[in-house]
Amino acid sequence: MELNKFPKERYLKYYILGFVDAEGCFNVSLKKQKNTRFGWVLDPVFHVTQHEKSRDVLELIKKTLKCGRIIEKHGQKETLQFLVDNRRQLREKILPFFDRYELIVKKEDFILFKKIVEGLENKEHTKLETFEVLIKLAFQMNMKGKQRRYKLKDVLDDIMGSSETTRRTQT
Amino acid sequence: MELNKFPKERYLKYYILGFVDAEGCFNVSLKKQKNTRFGWVLDPVFHVTQHEKSRDVLELIKKTLKCGRIIEKHGQKETLQFLVDNRRQLREKILPFFDRYELIVKKEDFILFKKIVEGLENKEHTKLETFEVLIKLAFQMNMKGKQRRYKLKDVLDDIMGSSETTRRTQT
Repeated sequence: MELNKFPKERYLKYYILGFVDAEGCFNVSLKKQKNTRFGWVLDPVFHVTQHEKSRDVLELIKKTLKCGRIIEKHGQKETLQFLVDNRRQLREKILPFFDRYELIVKKEDFILFKKIVEGLENKEHTKLETFEVLIKLAFQMNMKGKQRRYKLKDVLDDIMGSSETTRRTQT
Repeated sequence: MELNKFPKERYLKYYILGFVDAEGCFNVSLKKQKNTRFGWVLDPVFHVTQHEKSRDVLELIKKTLKCGRIIEKHGQKETLQFLVDNRRQLREKILPFFDRYELIVKKEDFILFKKIVEGLENKEHTKLETFEVLIKLAFQMNMKGKQRRYKLKDVLDDIMGSSETTRRTQT
């Protein structure tokens, strides 16, 4: 990788900004998980996907953002992903980078992603009302035309149910 | 579009570089065309595709590269394309920009694209041997996993055929 393509580090950061605005993904998946308070977890992940022959650019992103890892994409041969799923790295590296270098195309998704990551940091998933707010934010996020596996109403009903069960068990 | 995202014009250019490296496409299609010397033409096009709700970023690319146009993508509702197919604009705007701001992922494609555009400028498509070279270059380009409509051997055979017909007609 010839880094003289970027005579100043700031130029590299704007290159990464443009690359992520085109190919990056701020994703918050919602998963059923039995041994949690409400039976559901929100899982924020930032990733950039490329063909394995473009590993160089993923290494460059990893180095610039100072976090994350590069893995083979599950079930897709010859495809790599730069991925950050560690909450602390998201909070300390990813959020400040894209606060400083502002996305255009993915700005709305980033704002929602940021609210959810910060919400999880503030333990908002441990209280029914605030957890519901986080879930609704996740449902507002762009899924690139894909449908979410679960419907918002079903998830909220299910959470209400497990919340009532918990209360009944406790009384 | 808030352009204070880019306190210096140079930053904007690196943003565009990153965006194009992820989402841009340097494409040279090969088309049958009867009233040409060899019955085939090479058609170089540079384009960037986005959902219509991200029109802003295409306008920004158009403004930065000082050429091209934005059109609805044929047959794809809600999809826009920033597109440069004018040979002069390719030579005077696109090639110099990506000579100055070097691509990483799409570098090889750009090099081939540039050779073909320059070859067409130098009328290399008007002589059999040099036209064959340009066609072979086009076949080396990344088609994003898509197959070319024609096979290289068939095209070269066809060109040889029409070249011989021309010669026979001339003698």
